[in-house]
Amino acid sequence: MDLKPTKPLSGFIELLPAQQRCFDECARRMLGVLRECGFSALDLPAIERAEVLTDKDNWDEIETQIFLFQKGDTKMGLRYDGTVGLSRYVAGHLNDLVFPFRASQFSKRYRGERAQRGRYREFYQMDMDIMGINSLSTNYDAEIISVIGRALDSVREFIGDNFVRIGSRPFWDALFDWLELNAEQKKAVFVLIDKKDKMPPSEFVAGIADTVQDSKKEKVILDVFETGYAGVRGKSEKLDVAIAELNDFMKILDVMGVKNATIDLSVTRGLAYYTGLVFEFGLTNFPELGTAAGGGRYADLAGKFSKTKIIGVGAAIGFSRIFVALMESGKIDLSKFESGTDVAVLIMGNENLSYAMSVLNALRDEKIPSVAYLDTDKKFKNQIEYADKIMAKFSMIIGEDEVKNKVVTLKNMATGEQQTLALFDAMKLVK
Amino acid sequence: MDLKPTKPLSGFIELLPAQQRCFDECARRMLGVLRECGFSALDLPAIERAEVLTDKDNWDEIETQIFLFQKGDTKMGLRYDGTVGLSRYVAGHLNDLVFPFRASQFSKRYRGERAQRGRYREFYQMDMDIMGINSLSTNYDAEIISVIGRALDSVREFIGDNFVRIGSRPFWDALFDWLELNAEQKKAVFVLIDKKDKMPPSEFVAGIADTVQDSKKEKVILDVFETGYAGVRGKSEKLDVAIAELNDFMKILDVMGVKNATIDLSVTRGLAYYTGLVFEFGLTNFPELGTAAGGGRYADLAGKFSKTKIIGVGAAIGFSRIFVALMESGKIDLSKFESGTDVAVLIMGNENLSYAMSVLNALRDEKIPSVAYLDTDKKFKNQIEYADKIMAKFSMIIGEDEVKNKVVTLKNMATGEQQTLALFDAMKLVK
Repeated sequence: MDLKPTKPLSGFIELLPAQQRCFDECARRMLGVLRECGFSALDLPAIERAEVLTDKDNWDEIETQIFLFQKGDTKMGLRYDGTVGLSRYVAGHLNDLVFPFRASQFSKRYRGERAQRGRYREFYQMDMDIMGINSLSTNYDAEIISVIGRALDSVREFIGDNFVRIGSRPFWDALFDWLELNAEQKKAVFVLIDKKDKMPPSEFVAGIADTVQDSKKEKVILDVFETGYAGVRGKSEKLDVAIAELNDFMKILDVMGVKNATIDLSVTRGLAYYTGLVFEFGLTNFPELGTAAGGGRYADLAGKFSKTKIIGVGAAIGFSRIFVALMESGKIDLSKFESGTDVAVLIMGNENLSYAMSVLNALRDEKIPSVAYLDTDKKFKNQIEYADKIMAKFSMIIGEDEVKNKVVTLKNMATGEQQTLALFDAMKLVK
Repeated sequence: MDLKPTKPLSGFIELLPAQQRCFDECARRMLGVLRECGFSALDLPAIERAEVLTDKDNWDEIETQIFLFQKGDTKMGLRYDGTVGLSRYVAGHLNDLVFPFRASQFSKRYRGERAQRGRYREFYQMDMDIMGINSLSTNYDAEIISVIGRALDSVREFIGDNFVRIGSRPFWDALFDWLELNAEQKKAVFVLIDKKDKMPPSEFVAGIADTVQDSKKEKVILDVFETGYAGVRGKSEKLDVAIAELNDFMKILDVMGVKNATIDLSVTRGLAYYTGLVFEFGLTNFPELGTAAGGGRYADLAGKFSKTKIIGVGAAIGFSRIFVALMESGKIDLSKFESGTDVAVLIMGNENLSYAMSVLNALRDEKIPSVAYLDTDKKFKNQIEYADKIMAKFSMIIGEDEVKNKVVTLKNMATGEQQTLALFDAMKLVK
């Protein structure tokens, strides 16, 4: 029989133990921040009805992006983000939840597209959303940004500093209105802005020119990327309202202790959801990663599911995108994650098992990560080799003498130093 | 436009925040035990190649059990257990891992079958496996049982006591050989034993009779369920070896401090994988849940993927099965999980935001779960109502006077007691 392949499918992530320990430690810290900030962790199904995942009917096209399948009469698929499930959940539990409701999600998402370099088909994102019924202060937008900053700061030793750029959807809406662009042009310009960083500057300029077909309008738009809103201040009331909102927001961020924020109107977050302020986080030391986290405000989160108007502000941190990429390119030092075990209990013969197990249980009761090498007929050489390979900090060697005298022989695996002493004293040394 | 459904698909689990907090706390404790016991947490893809998931070619039949789909030329599907992915991973990383290798997995699994009452189509299991190359002491089987016991004990306050029943595949093999059953009869008897608890006793007896077509053989088999191995001791060398192995194993369990184990030859774990000792955990207080965890030894874990012989002993805890069932039937007291927040900061007007945010940041820096009510123009009545609804233990009220005097007004939400004091002193009270 031919052997089956051992590699995962392309675009799927599989980490080695030390990498996984680093990944898990980063998740643990960041989820701890979200908990301290009062977010309720939700764990929603990875599979949703197809009609929940998309409004589109063109299945062939959708299937290139979403993992879809059919069971009986029901078309369903794997979620591609956290927002679809969240909006369904919140709309279905309006009376069970307290608003403003703070939800966090740390879960796997799926993209059905063909795997490309650096694009995963299964990946973790960490979402946080705050939702209000009918109203929600812009203070909450600032709160989300502040919380993401705290979460990223909790793993600063691995990813360094972060910064956030703030954009405004209302600004562009106001600008397009003032320029009298039609709906098609508005959409096309948005698409171009969203892809700006991924195309040559000349292509971007040509795209804008092609779209607006008016050199004055073209210049107004391109100027925004050079001088921000300076050139269009006072041009329309709507523009001034949007500019004032943005400046007020920067003041709130400052008040909230967010010091690494700047206005950047090129941030628009594409065509999705958002209707208000939008933002993107980057990592100072790793510009090649692009957007580390992004989000914004949506005026009507769950309109598909409920007549109640749910206003939300939320964001997703590209968790796999950050940590898997940095680990795989060797940019995170994994040395402190190589070992998962503090103590290896080595047993010289199965007749010493009983005493050795009482030692092992005592270590574990004290929450000292420890294993026993239970092939007790193996030679000392093999056993100490195992302790060395798993990078245990200490070995506790149990032989006839140790059992008789109710002691353990403790070996410091780094220094080679070895001493025989009471378990209680050995545990103090290990701790 | 019609509103879309807000219920998840049938067979999919969706918890409310308090339930999720309980679920997460139980997972946190049990995963802590696995870490202390030296298991490396793995997080493998939920999607595998179809050929990895199954050896069968009858896609129509398989699709009733597995979520399958096709992308390009590749047939793939969602994992239904943790073992298929683990064996692939270990076979693919023989040189990256240290053996005996201890792996844990806590992940979602999927069953494509039509949802039945109490059967989930998406559920969590917690797996632990110890794998050796070419050899692995039976001590490791006992270690796995000991670790499951520790994990279940870590959540005893929610699920009560547990017990474990030990069965032996070699015993049945030896018995069938002695009875001279053919391969077909062996398989049929195993299937009946596996389903014994789910059918009326008369049906089980009739099934055995039908299969073996010999009243003496029938009686020998049925007697095992009454008197264990007593009636067949000394009948063949193979039987005596199997019985001796089982008795020796019970002694090792005792030595390891496992006190809640009994021999029960009716435990066979169906037709899957296992080739050695097998075991099933139950919960003393919740017999209706059936098997809480189960596992056993397999002689050749990764034969499909590698020519290297990997011997394993492993088990899966039916995590969703236990905790979701107990929560949904109201058998776990969720009162201590109702609140996720210790302090609600209430702000009487946006001019006090800056000071309030410094208070909030100080609380969060001390890892005190806290939120601010940021619709600062809302009346005190609305704000205190929110603090009440989220079951915050304390409110910190920030108004003009508090800002001026650099103090906070702390309200104990349970007693209604209220006092104005320095933040530092308020934080001491909260802690």
